[in-house]
Amino acid sequence: MRDYVRPMTHQRVRTVSEQIENRDIRGTATIARETAQAIEVAADDAEAETPAEFRETIRVAARTLHEARPDDDSLSNALRYLFKRMDGETVATLQESVTSAARRFQENIDRARETLGQIGARRLQDGDTVMVHSHSADALATIEHALEAGKEIDAIVKETRPRKQGHIAAQQLQEWGVPTTLIVDSAARRYLDETDQVVVGADSIAADGSVVNRIGTSDLAVIARERGVPVTVAAQTVRLHPDSLTGHSAGIENRPEREVLDDATRKQIGEVSVENPAFDVTPARYVDAIVTERGQYPPESVVTLMRELYGGSARDPWLEE
Amino acid sequence: MRDYVRPMTHQRVRTVSEQIENRDIRGTATIARETAQAIEVAADDAEAETPAEFRETIRVAARTLHEARPDDDSLSNALRYLFKRMDGETVATLQESVTSAARRFQENIDRARETLGQIGARRLQDGDTVMVHSHSADALATIEHALEAGKEIDAIVKETRPRKQGHIAAQQLQEWGVPTTLIVDSAARRYLDETDQVVVGADSIAADGSVVNRIGTSDLAVIARERGVPVTVAAQTVRLHPDSLTGHSAGIENRPEREVLDDATRKQIGEVSVENPAFDVTPARYVDAIVTERGQYPPESVVTLMRELYGGSARDPWLEE
Amino acid sequence: MRDYVRPMTHQRVRTVSEQIENRDIRGTATIARETAQAIEVAADDAEAETPAEFRETIRVAARTLHEARPDDDSLSNALRYLFKRMDGETVATLQESVTSAARRFQENIDRARETLGQIGARRLQDGDTVMVHSHSADALATIEHALEAGKEIDAIVKETRPRKQGHIAAQQLQEWGVPTTLIVDSAARRYLDETDQVVVGADSIAADGSVVNRIGTSDLAVIARERGVPVTVAAQTVRLHPDSLTGHSAGIENRPEREVLDDATRKQIGEVSVENPAFDVTPARYVDAIVTERGQYPPESVVTLMRELYGGSARDPWLEE
Amino acid sequence: MRDYVRPMTHQRVRTVSEQIENRDIRGTATIARETAQAIEVAADDAEAETPAEFRETIRVAARTLHEARPDDDSLSNALRYLFKRMDGETVATLQESVTSAARRFQENIDRARETLGQIGARRLQDGDTVMVHSHSADALATIEHALEAGKEIDAIVKETRPRKQGHIAAQQLQEWGVPTTLIVDSAARRYLDETDQVVVGADSIAADGSVVNRIGTSDLAVIARERGVPVTVAAQTVRLHPDSLTGHSAGIENRPEREVLDDATRKQIGEVSVENPAFDVTPARYVDAIVTERGQYPPESVVTLMRELYGGSARDPWLEE
Amino acid sequence: MRDYVRPMTHQRVRTVSEQIENRDIRGTATIARETAQAIEVAADDAEAETPAEFRETIRVAARTLHEARPDDDSLSNALRYLFKRMDGETVATLQESVTSAARRFQENIDRARETLGQIGARRLQDGDTVMVHSHSADALATIEHALEAGKEIDAIVKETRPRKQGHIAAQQLQEWGVPTTLIVDSAARRYLDETDQVVVGADSIAADGSVVNRIGTSDLAVIARERGVPVTVAAQTVRLHPDSLTGHSAGIENRPEREVLDDATRKQIGEVSVENPAFDVTPARYVDAIVTERGQYPPESVVTLMRELYGGSARDPWLEE
Amino acid sequence: MRDYVRPMTHQRVRTVSEQIENRDIRGTATIARETAQAIEVAADDAEAETPAEFRETIRVAARTLHEARPDDDSLSNALRYLFKRMDGETVATLQESVTSAARRFQENIDRARETLGQIGARRLQDGDTVMVHSHSADALATIEHALEAGKEIDAIVKETRPRKQGHIAAQQLQEWGVPTTLIVDSAARRYLDETDQVVVGADSIAADGSVVNRIGTSDLAVIARERGVPVTVAAQTVRLHPDSLTGHSAGIENRPEREVLDDATRKQIGEVSVENPAFDVTPARYVDAIVTERGQYPPESVVTLMRELYGGSARDPWLEE
Repeated sequence: MRDYVRPMTHQRVRTVSEQIENRDIRGTATIARETAQAIEVAADDAEAETPAEFRETIRVAARTLHEARPDDDSLSNALRYLFKRMDGETVATLQESVTSAARRFQENIDRARETLGQIGARRLQDGDTVMVHSHSADALATIEHALEAGKEIDAIVKETRPRKQGHIAAQQLQEWGVPTTLIVDSAARRYLDETDQVVVGADSIAADGSVVNRIGTSDLAVIARERGVPVTVAAQTVRLHPDSLTGHSAGIENRPEREVLDDATRKQIGEVSVENPAFDVTPARYVDAIVTERGQYPPESVVTLMRELYGGSARDPWLEE
Repeated sequence: MRDYVRPMTHQRVRTVSEQIENRDIRGTATIARETAQAIEVAADDAEAETPAEFRETIRVAARTLHEARPDDDSLSNALRYLFKRMDGETVATLQESVTSAARRFQENIDRARETLGQIGARRLQDGDTVMVHSHSADALATIEHALEAGKEIDAIVKETRPRKQGHIAAQQLQEWGVPTTLIVDSAARRYLDETDQVVVGADSIAADGSVVNRIGTSDLAVIARERGVPVTVAAQTVRLHPDSLTGHSAGIENRPEREVLDDATRKQIGEVSVENPAFDVTPARYVDAIVTERGQYPPESVVTLMRELYGGSARDPWLEE
Repeated sequence: MRDYVRPMTHQRVRTVSEQIENRDIRGTATIARETAQAIEVAADDAEAETPAEFRETIRVAARTLHEARPDDDSLSNALRYLFKRMDGETVATLQESVTSAARRFQENIDRARETLGQIGARRLQDGDTVMVHSHSADALATIEHALEAGKEIDAIVKETRPRKQGHIAAQQLQEWGVPTTLIVDSAARRYLDETDQVVVGADSIAADGSVVNRIGTSDLAVIARERGVPVTVAAQTVRLHPDSLTGHSAGIENRPEREVLDDATRKQIGEVSVENPAFDVTPARYVDAIVTERGQYPPESVVTLMRELYGGSARDPWLEE
Repeated sequence: MRDYVRPMTHQRVRTVSEQIENRDIRGTATIARETAQAIEVAADDAEAETPAEFRETIRVAARTLHEARPDDDSLSNALRYLFKRMDGETVATLQESVTSAARRFQENIDRARETLGQIGARRLQDGDTVMVHSHSADALATIEHALEAGKEIDAIVKETRPRKQGHIAAQQLQEWGVPTTLIVDSAARRYLDETDQVVVGADSIAADGSVVNRIGTSDLAVIARERGVPVTVAAQTVRLHPDSLTGHSAGIENRPEREVLDDATRKQIGEVSVENPAFDVTPARYVDAIVTERGQYPPESVVTLMRELYGGSARDPWLEE
Repeated sequence: MRDYVRPMTHQRVRTVSEQIENRDIRGTATIARETAQAIEVAADDAEAETPAEFRETIRVAARTLHEARPDDDSLSNALRYLFKRMDGETVATLQESVTSAARRFQENIDRARETLGQIGARRLQDGDTVMVHSHSADALATIEHALEAGKEIDAIVKETRPRKQGHIAAQQLQEWGVPTTLIVDSAARRYLDETDQVVVGADSIAADGSVVNRIGTSDLAVIARERGVPVTVAAQTVRLHPDSLTGHSAGIENRPEREVLDDATRKQIGEVSVENPAFDVTPARYVDAIVTERGQYPPESVVTLMRELYGGSARDPWLEE
Repeated sequence: MRDYVRPMTHQRVRTVSEQIENRDIRGTATIARETAQAIEVAADDAEAETPAEFRETIRVAARTLHEARPDDDSLSNALRYLFKRMDGETVATLQESVTSAARRFQENIDRARETLGQIGARRLQDGDTVMVHSHSADALATIEHALEAGKEIDAIVKETRPRKQGHIAAQQLQEWGVPTTLIVDSAARRYLDETDQVVVGADSIAADGSVVNRIGTSDLAVIARERGVPVTVAAQTVRLHPDSLTGHSAGIENRPEREVLDDATRKQIGEVSVENPAFDVTPARYVDAIVTERGQYPPESVVTLMRELYGGSARDPWLEE
């Protein structure tokens, strides 16, 4: 292989990579879109003379982007999506395969929430009361589209300690004119008797169909099953976690203790330990359906969609030769 | 019947009644003890000439006390306990039956928490991790006595929004030297994997074995069953709710919305509704045992204890003639 | 023993016995009341000279009545109730114990449905929708008293094939002004989503807390648990089946095949077998509470009430010497 | 685009469309077969000069057929199947792709029940007793083929109110020599103790694996799980409901109240409401396997088969340009 | 108190105490009967001059017996039974109360298994297949009496490693002519499909209704519930464990490792640890009924029977003054 | 077709076929690898002049191999894998498709256990205690790789009567330095309280996601769910059973009675029947994930992998023409 490769990392790729690293670019969808676009530009501008050179150019670009935030699933998924579709016998066809895949990927990202919202909205019926945990734009999109379809929806919002993202959800729902009731997290079972559906988002969805989401989601899902209330998870396919196919699990961040216990109270109570995990894992069997912009799936079948979109190889394709 | 009865309401009964009404006397145990003692004094000083007169004297005293706080179960239970044991053919034997019952009742109250703690402590094993919801002196007593018996106990404390009584429990446990971890309520299922037992208190226990306790108790009980962790309810027998035998249910107080949402945040979110029930109801089938100072019982058998202690008549016995 | 005993079977006892046998006297409550009254009269008129003679007189009367319908639980229960309370050292005190027990028993019977209805009504909340299976006057009494207490109740009535007793229930509910919806039995799960409580009666309740009731009750109870809807059984204590304490189970009548399949249809289908059991058995664990006129009980504790009312001896007391 | 398109709607397509609309052509399989055949003829006769013209010809034919019964899944599925396989660069290859797909589709339809029956029959063991709800030719086919394989099968048939399709099933089973017992729907749980397998059909199967079938199916499935009896759903792949992938649910017809309550009885009862939904929805988790002519699947994996056969696009392909 | 008491421990009491200690007297029933008889003789021969002396005489005798095997529940229960019934104002009446209680206790012991067997037999139906774990004479008695009542019973016997007490059960059943199938413990779920009832014994039954029995009982009970097969526990009331009322749990013996792994195999495998607990604890909720010679009870109500027979005091009554 | 085909069965194919028949070649992986290699050689050496001849050559070879052990899934799967990938218009391309598929298949077989072990190891966490049933090299591979990744793992091994394969597992684990505790099978539920994960192998996995494995696996899976412990099945994809797609179930061998009961004991017990099935069937719903060398899957999605690897045709492809 010629040694021109490393220096030729495309300027756009380098810029986007830095912006992702500095969090100038952030948010699941934005990172995914920018990643795909950077690769698109890099592919378009590639001056490769052989298919092998072209492939290596793309791999180098991918590695640069990947290193910006190796743990970001949406970034990896954007890359995996493109590699799975990079195909051709000539530089031109390879180029075309990558740029068109990148465009399709970006289009999907741009429309994903709306499509997902429309699909999920069909699961809600006129007059339903929906219980919401934390704030998930995807989950709320299903309510938004149900409202647009003329359905009356009421909401019960769990405040979602420690950071009370429920307040954000409640504010959004209020703005849409949804009659909204705020409760503490502990009151969930009491109000599930008045709830027709639980709708939550997902931070990450694994190959075994389990859902990583804001702490308390699994508690809610278990209680909802006991109360006979169906649970819908609304999440875009960039949330799928293909590494889980090979047994990797999403790391669960432990957030600052101060979110749970401010310093003054802590001084008063004494040196109590605090555990503050950001997420928990809900087994597939407590979820009724996962709604994505590619349609709704039983959680146990999401692995099929995951492989179709992102492939199933154990090794990141940009590391292969 | 002679008309001297009303005026003769015993001074002590009047005083105690007023103190209960003014909340100078408060706390489940204190109210129960003072009620019994007032009746004891009234019985001792009664100048009745006939058994009927004596009975009426006690009924009048009871009514006076009952009216001070008609909804207080421990007050009613103290009265019910005494009426069930008032028995005799002569004034003297009636007097003796009431005063000795009153003394036994007070003695039981004084030792109840300790006895209950000893009984419950035997359910805890050396090395156990106990999950605690809210603050219940009865529940903590089981841990205290386990510690006294030389067992090592760790604690996981749910903060118990909205009023965070978990902080009080955590502080108490810390003072006893129990390694204590504080979590938000939503983290319960995640930490049940590291929990050997759940121990909670009860505000009121019904004839059908269901347990009224701090909001979130039923959520925890359902999740604990799903995780295979046994749930113990620790509560003194003054917490039993004999009216439930005739279908009455304990009223569930709705507490101030401000506990859930302070005014500033509310202004920001918009005019969201807030529901803030103080308690919820845990069905008997999610509770493994109820530990009282009279021994431990399956929740389904507590009705037998309830009738034995307080009788089962639909009407308050001090209203009968 | 003198030989006057047999001929001296009291005339009233003989008459009542014949009327029960001929079904001139029928209906659970009526049989129980008439049985108690016949014994009361027989006790009152007894010309026994010794306690032993008196006891034998009552045993003879009991045997005569029992033989009229040996399988009738309410008849046996009336007798058991009286024998358990027959007590005294002299003929006079024995006489008094039997007649006063008989009177109390009759009074209880007369007020049982009303008391039970009031107790059960407290379990229903304003605005509740109640699902009803078959027609049970006891179950409907809980709705009647809820209405009297000013609660708004809606009803969903399962038609209850084969004999469609649901039609009787629906008619009664309509007359009371209850908005009533009739469904086929198979639609139960669909409409449990709109149901707050299931209330059914009982033909017989066993020592293990299981409930024998109209075929389809156990199906409904299992589905209601799955849907998170509580199940109340409303039944008077004459429905308790003390023989079950010694392992006897209530026989389950197989009713005429024609109720399921009329002859014309059968001819057309061919010689299909038909099974038409009148009742099924619901395990205690699917019932939330049993409401009787003596209060509400967890099904697992009904055995205590059973023994208190009717004793626990394996042998019918009128057969003992 | 030239304006000759509309007038050129093929005569056969027009005829079939009218016959479907008039219900001269009816029945799931027949409609699907005739639809495919009409498209086959239209494709064969198409005089398109360009691939675009050919595609438009087929789209027009499809729209005409689709409008005949827009809600008929088997009709839509036939069209979706063909559109998913229409592929080619020339009119000839496009033509070939459609006609050969149409022939394969028809062949599959013709053999579907038999193949499905053979597959399902292998789940039944010699000596099994099968419980049947409603009448489903697909479900019965599994029993028929088990008999042909020499297995002895007994049947318990629920009558399936209101229309008692169980009678049809019973008659069919009798004709095959299967010892058959008819029961009312409410007797299901009682007779599940003697049942080895439940086999039912499906009206429609959704992407989330839930099964729409004759009212009472979900009740039976829940009870069968409680009794430990496996539930098999037997249904041809034309029953799959691809629209459900985008959140659409099968509409559930409310049938005439008269089926539940004849006018005379209604007059007697009073103006009771009647709900008479034709179908209910059984969640995937209560179904052990779905047997189709393409093999047996866990309900949670049916979505994969659905997409493979009919595609997953949100929009009907004949509406696209 | 005079100092003659200790020396006057009755000869019979001393002898029985020694024989129990030396295991010359052993077996639950035998120990209980001999204990009661020794007290009976001691009471009969007591030369007390005052009621207090008599009571002390009996307490001394009880202590002597109790010390022989302080952990033997049947011995303690025999003593508790007598103390609960020791009542009277004079030595003579006290004497009579103890000796008659002792005789009734012995009579009950002598007939307990037969009575229990008759009661349990009524739960078995003609044609039932019963699954048996370990060897329990009480459990087998239910089958024996079912056979005597002319019912045909088949048995499936789990071998019950490590000591294979299932072989003893199988041999006994064979001798009674019961068609018996032996399986390894792991095959239980497979053969529960052919089982109508599970019947096991109990080593000890606690106040919370949980059943201590041969290791593997709880596994079987959980699987039986999953398969929808009812579980009966057959045990005489001397098996009740009144100390559990105050939270004490039955100690679970760890038996020799050699029962699980012989020395040769161990040498070959390496220094693997072995755990060999003799018993496990089955929660009340997996047991359908407990059959005793006093009738059958839901496990949740056994606490009532326990208190009725043996009292509920926290302290052993022979230690009180 | 020319008649040279039969005689031309490749020598290598004949040899391998005989060795498989004689069990000189045995073991799941070895049989699969040898089968693929034989076909590879046969394809390489094929002297076919037309594609049809080549295909027939391969079919003949496949039939010869298949007949060696028609019931061996791994052999059939090797053949199915190759036939699904045999594709081409010319003899050369057909040849290339078969030989390259055969090589890939063998490579996969050679690395399968290691890859599977690495994937499964990621499900285990540092400090976990794993319960193991029977001996499965695949299941143990997950522990081996967890150890290699530096995790500390403890093991609890069920002895797995009748053949006590648990001893083999225990020995292996000891050799790896894993602290290992051996228990009898009946002690599983008691020790699940100390278990973080259950890991078992599979003999065969069906299209409905059910797992055929050593008798006792389903018992363990049900109890593990009740105790809240996740169950992982570790199995290579040659264990998949494609015939199950068409309803065939894996035959469950009944092993010699002598494994359960030696002759001497049997003589003593009497002519008891013995059932000794080698395997049982665990429904998909009790398994949390199936770990294969192709990634981890919910059991309900394994059917998709099965079809992808081996196709879904009802008829063995080597029998088609």
